[in-house]
Amino acid sequence: MARPGPISGFPEWLPDQQMVEQRVVDTLRATFELHGFVPVKTRAVEPLEQLLSKGETDKEIYVLRRLHAGDDDGDAGLGLHFDLTVPFARYVVEHAGKLTFTLRRYQIQKAWRGERPQEGRYREFLQADFDVIGEGRLGTHHDAELVQVLADVWRACPFPPMRLSVNNRKIAQGFYRSIGIADIPAALRAVDKLDKIGEQGVAEQLVAVAGCTDKQAELCLELARVSAEDDSFVERVRALGVDDPLIDEGLGELVEVLDAARDVLAGFAVADMRIARGFDYYTGTVYEGTLVGHESLGAVCSGGRYDNLASAGEGAVYPGVGLSVGVTRTLSRLFGRGLLQASRPTPTTVLVALPSEGDRPRCRRIAAALRSRGIPTEVAPEPVKYGKQIRYAERRGIPYVWFPEGPSGADEVRDIRTGTQDPADPAAWVPPEPDRSVAIVATEG
Amino acid sequence: MARPGPISGFPEWLPDQQMVEQRVVDTLRATFELHGFVPVKTRAVEPLEQLLSKGETDKEIYVLRRLHAGDDDGDAGLGLHFDLTVPFARYVVEHAGKLTFTLRRYQIQKAWRGERPQEGRYREFLQADFDVIGEGRLGTHHDAELVQVLADVWRACPFPPMRLSVNNRKIAQGFYRSIGIADIPAALRAVDKLDKIGEQGVAEQLVAVAGCTDKQAELCLELARVSAEDDSFVERVRALGVDDPLIDEGLGELVEVLDAARDVLAGFAVADMRIARGFDYYTGTVYEGTLVGHESLGAVCSGGRYDNLASAGEGAVYPGVGLSVGVTRTLSRLFGRGLLQASRPTPTTVLVALPSEGDRPRCRRIAAALRSRGIPTEVAPEPVKYGKQIRYAERRGIPYVWFPEGPSGADEVRDIRTGTQDPADPAAWVPPEPDRSVAIVATEG
Repeated sequence: MARPGPISGFPEWLPDQQMVEQRVVDTLRATFELHGFVPVKTRAVEPLEQLLSKGETDKEIYVLRRLHAGDDDGDAGLGLHFDLTVPFARYVVEHAGKLTFTLRRYQIQKAWRGERPQEGRYREFLQADFDVIGEGRLGTHHDAELVQVLADVWRACPFPPMRLSVNNRKIAQGFYRSIGIADIPAALRAVDKLDKIGEQGVAEQLVAVAGCTDKQAELCLELARVSAEDDSFVERVRALGVDDPLIDEGLGELVEVLDAARDVLAGFAVADMRIARGFDYYTGTVYEGTLVGHESLGAVCSGGRYDNLASAGEGAVYPGVGLSVGVTRTLSRLFGRGLLQASRPTPTTVLVALPSEGDRPRCRRIAAALRSRGIPTEVAPEPVKYGKQIRYAERRGIPYVWFPEGPSGADEVRDIRTGTQDPADPAAWVPPEPDRSVAIVATEG
Repeated sequence: MARPGPISGFPEWLPDQQMVEQRVVDTLRATFELHGFVPVKTRAVEPLEQLLSKGETDKEIYVLRRLHAGDDDGDAGLGLHFDLTVPFARYVVEHAGKLTFTLRRYQIQKAWRGERPQEGRYREFLQADFDVIGEGRLGTHHDAELVQVLADVWRACPFPPMRLSVNNRKIAQGFYRSIGIADIPAALRAVDKLDKIGEQGVAEQLVAVAGCTDKQAELCLELARVSAEDDSFVERVRALGVDDPLIDEGLGELVEVLDAARDVLAGFAVADMRIARGFDYYTGTVYEGTLVGHESLGAVCSGGRYDNLASAGEGAVYPGVGLSVGVTRTLSRLFGRGLLQASRPTPTTVLVALPSEGDRPRCRRIAAALRSRGIPTEVAPEPVKYGKQIRYAERRGIPYVWFPEGPSGADEVRDIRTGTQDPADPAAWVPPEPDRSVAIVATEG
């Protein structure tokens, strides 16, 4: 085998980083379950028509083909999912008869997009989604609840603080409608590019793509400039002098979400009228979260309210609201900057030294006795000199070496960081709690 | 959206089943880490040439293509991995400079094969692999160690007992060589089909495909008939009157593996000369495990020793030995037979009843107080009559409903299974331990 190399856009971690990812995912799961969310995993593939109907992502989809597919290829027209919202909406409609609504679900899985790779943008990436979905209707208080769950998630994870920008599409929709813009989706997509192309660029797109007049484009930008940590955004939007019932509805929902957020974590969420999000399926609240101090990375969390994404004809509709955390994007930045690492590179707490190959069964029994009390243990691979076995433990960060029948005649255990060596009983010895398992060490960035 | 349906070969679980799968995966992880295995995840894709060089699987590979790929398509020639051994071997060679050997790793991920779906055979399935891999050399005692880890895994999982058949390819290779068979890989592949096509079918393939004489084919079948729970297989193989140093080497390694297995779990592993395994890369020990009482399902666990799979040229070689547990295959059978289920269909322990919409902030604070002590809690979605809120909890198996300011003036909590209702303090109340979290309920099959 020639030495193989990485594939651009498909990141892989070393084992110590993978332990950090595992523990972050465990923390996400535990927090979601604490809030009553059930786990769902969907298949990696969806019918292409399903994927293509949900937004401007057709260029990013990976299509599958069996290598030696014949004419009977039943897999023609399958693609890898590009997010977890579209498969979840399909899952809800497909299994509706067996699900209980209101449904609170989380889903932590890979997604794939054939995009040009760059920092923070991958072709394969891990997402952690959580959504609440109703049958027929869903109270807007769930939009606020999700922010509270996210705040809990972020407090539990070893990440830099998040700043969550929240908006409500109804505000812009009512505003655009009232000032006479015909193609509202196109206008939303133009404004969504503010961070990338700036005000001048957005103004040009509003005119050229969304058919706005210069005056309309300027009003759109004035709205997008409104942001606030408190409820003052309501007055600032009203001061623009545009009236529409949809604006009032959107402002009311946004105030509710931000009030609830302040209730659990002050300064976590802010109102920001420039947040639009790219997907067409959002109908109300939209969220976009960035890491404080890492704003250049873009959003590490996003989502929103979708009242019409999942529907099964004959009036059956499942409105939902969801948030998605970019696990790969976040970890990749924090690993890259050396801000997150495992406390040691192996789960093993104890290496049982091996006096001779004939002692292996005895050493295995010592290891089994330690494991029976939840202490991760391995037996040395070879009966080489003890000095070499200790270096074996050192090289992989194993804190203790166990010597069957040490100098005292009894078994002895050595803390190889301090050199302290004491008699020990495999049926009773326990390590100090911090040595039992691998922890995550986060450095302030 | 028209009501979407399942895709053959791509199974999906309902949320309560997904909770079972999660807890099984947690148990696998915990057991692997207890034995000092580090986690690895590899990207879902490998270069096609990498996938094609490792066995007779070319018809089963899913190839990727970007939907609107141009001439610059850097993804041409990528396929989804069909197992976790080939990607791991690649990972080891690629990252060798940053890994510490002997490397003990586990890997729990999906794999994909474009096979014709049938019971136990899926196009997308979850595998749990664990391997030990060395740099340059690797003691055969690791072949035995893996059986001990597997026995621990199986004891920890809520599965029917396993019967692990073990063989060593060196026995058949020495035997075939000694009786003059030229195409040994072809002969091994023929014998591997014993379960599918029977002795007569195998004999025909040995003659037609592997170029054996009738006499040679009969000797191959005589060897394949040898199996034993104890070491008596050694004498039975020797009684066939064929001598070769490789046979002795294989028999010695097999005795070592089985002795170690008996040391941890009597009756778990048996020697069986008919086990060959399909992949060409195995060079010594091979394993194949079936569920007792579910033998028709085929192997739920398999693996073996591969001394030459991972090599980087210039003499660098990484011999390994590994086992792979078919999580989807096992769970799918147990779910299908109703032998495995969650103790309740939601993680939620407490539903906080909602007297009126205005009480939501207060109810959210009660929920937060309970969660702060690790009690999964959600707030009722709507302030409907208490009877309806209790039925909401009943329908999803939530055992407790919390009433802010009950009849006593204080908060009260009701066990809705018994109807018992008592005053309770959100800052102090704890449920009985079994109600805290979801457990797996296994029924004898």
